[in-house]
Amino acid sequence: MQRIDLNLGARRCPILIGPGLLGMQAVFAEHVGDRQLMVVSNETVAPLWLPRLRAGLGGRPFAQFLLPDGEQHKTLASAGRIIDALVDAGLNRDCMVMALGGGVVGDIAGFAAATYQRGVACLQLPTTLLAQVDSAIGGKTGVNHQGGKNLIGAFHQPAAVIADTDTLATLPDRELRAGLAEVIKSALIADGSFFVWLEQRIEALLERRPEALEEAIRRACEIKSGIVASDEREQGPRAILNLGHSFGHAIETGLGHGTWLHGEAVSAGIVLAAELSARSGRLAAADVERVRGLLARAGLPVEPPRLGRERMLSLLGMDKKVAGGRLRLVLLDSIGSAVCTADFPQAALGELLEDKAGMGDT
Amino acid sequence: MQRIDLNLGARRCPILIGPGLLGMQAVFAEHVGDRQLMVVSNETVAPLWLPRLRAGLGGRPFAQFLLPDGEQHKTLASAGRIIDALVDAGLNRDCMVMALGGGVVGDIAGFAAATYQRGVACLQLPTTLLAQVDSAIGGKTGVNHQGGKNLIGAFHQPAAVIADTDTLATLPDRELRAGLAEVIKSALIADGSFFVWLEQRIEALLERRPEALEEAIRRACEIKSGIVASDEREQGPRAILNLGHSFGHAIETGLGHGTWLHGEAVSAGIVLAAELSARSGRLAAADVERVRGLLARAGLPVEPPRLGRERMLSLLGMDKKVAGGRLRLVLLDSIGSAVCTADFPQAALGELLEDKAGMGDT
Repeated sequence: MQRIDLNLGARRCPILIGPGLLGMQAVFAEHVGDRQLMVVSNETVAPLWLPRLRAGLGGRPFAQFLLPDGEQHKTLASAGRIIDALVDAGLNRDCMVMALGGGVVGDIAGFAAATYQRGVACLQLPTTLLAQVDSAIGGKTGVNHQGGKNLIGAFHQPAAVIADTDTLATLPDRELRAGLAEVIKSALIADGSFFVWLEQRIEALLERRPEALEEAIRRACEIKSGIVASDEREQGPRAILNLGHSFGHAIETGLGHGTWLHGEAVSAGIVLAAELSARSGRLAAADVERVRGLLARAGLPVEPPRLGRERMLSLLGMDKKVAGGRLRLVLLDSIGSAVCTADFPQAALGELLEDKAGMGDT
Repeated sequence: MQRIDLNLGARRCPILIGPGLLGMQAVFAEHVGDRQLMVVSNETVAPLWLPRLRAGLGGRPFAQFLLPDGEQHKTLASAGRIIDALVDAGLNRDCMVMALGGGVVGDIAGFAAATYQRGVACLQLPTTLLAQVDSAIGGKTGVNHQGGKNLIGAFHQPAAVIADTDTLATLPDRELRAGLAEVIKSALIADGSFFVWLEQRIEALLERRPEALEEAIRRACEIKSGIVASDEREQGPRAILNLGHSFGHAIETGLGHGTWLHGEAVSAGIVLAAELSARSGRLAAADVERVRGLLARAGLPVEPPRLGRERMLSLLGMDKKVAGGRLRLVLLDSIGSAVCTADFPQAALGELLEDKAGMGDT
């Protein structure tokens, strides 16, 4: 088992990574205490992994709430139904919400925990690669709005993150690949040697070799923890974690949530960000090809859908990373170093979107 | 103009109190900057005070959203509609929500600000006495749930609180009195000499003498600011601000939200808390009579409705101040000193509720 501590001033969030964790009573004894519990999961994950969690909880009672599976249920209304269930179960301010599932379950259960009685404890139990390396770490919670992803949310740090790597065995291939997009992103923004490691081990990861997966998760979590610790509320440095996400969110919203997986949209977004970095004179063209090449080997999309240049620009305009009316994007200075900046030629962005996302008939 | 700074570690929240503030451009130049703005108000307050605020904003544009008047609209659905309006107006993460109104407007607009894009700036512009002395101060935001008041919410400190005391001129008598309940509460928990001042000046306050109101608001804000500064997230000492509120929330929920005003329910709740303090040997019987006497002179209810002992106990069971299954209540040790404690005879609580809130036929 690996353990990383995300340090946040007086608080800390332990992140545990390893096989079998969901079934370990000692783990829950340490991180749950004697709180009243509600498990939030979905209809796909619960049949697979709730029995193991039940064993880990050693017979203590818990309420449960199952969401339907899918991003389309990540709404304010769903969060409201979780809160209804918390009220109906009579859970008080000292209760704990346990989020068992992928990014959607974690985000929405985390948001319900953040807002129930102005904030109750939350334990993240991520069961997808994307959630284990990214969405369960760092305290961002939220739900989607028809105007954009995660437009409603809160910062609410989990009491702990417990990532049982056995759960990756039941993950569909497409979701495994989507998670690798965030792993690759973490290397790109902060650790060039990890990127080289990924270039060497990508096939082992796609084959789900346990030691490769555990190592990739550990390194991605360390990178994210370090960045979040420096900037919990995303006032500055944390924004680099959004590499590829402005474009990615635009793609997801433009196609309709759920058409592409988040990681797939981020993959195409990372390539766009790398391209724009090159066109802005920040990144070597050869590095763009390394980025594109690794994402392609991971089976991820490296071209955005042709939503049209103006539509993409409009979708980017409502992105959360706009400051004072000028678009800020995360760009790469090299493989392993990123910056969030508005310092790029606006014309280059338009040309890039025309080339890569234009309709082809204008 | 009075100014109090609520200090929260690295942050501070200035509280300005005085006549005419809503129309002062210098005030808004200092506290708004060049942010995009949305004013949230209601259909009663906006016709009265939005013109003055418009003058204070000196012609700068702002979006607006008007709620219907009334506590029954303090729902998650209403918060969702404010967020819809923020999205529709294209407001970004650096925008500011301005809450112009009483406690309901402030709580719900504050909650929308807390959750829009994981938190945008909020300026509280309270127009009722209750909001000026209590609900606008301290960063508690939230909406009601059918299971209880403020069961959904967030801590989100406003950028500033600007209390224009002229707005009290248009406040209905019943709401003025409801606000006085929170003023009296603040004296009871922290400042015996302020309680004596209130005993001397209650008629002046009911006559709305401006200098008396401004002084009462200043002292109540100072008390609340001091307590919030010591415990922003209500882990401990801040709980004494809830004197009378456990009983009060039970009364509001039991009667149906909106039947009694919040301050009216708190008034009856304060008397119950004082009675229980006396029956627990904490408070002299003569002090209970002083408490009851001042609230009665303020025109406030000093007896709870007869909802029934068991119903009241059940309503108290879902209260947020329950810890580990044992009910904690704010009790008085003297006039000017309160404690949040589970250390009282449970039998005394049952007897009190039988005496004061029993149905009279059992």
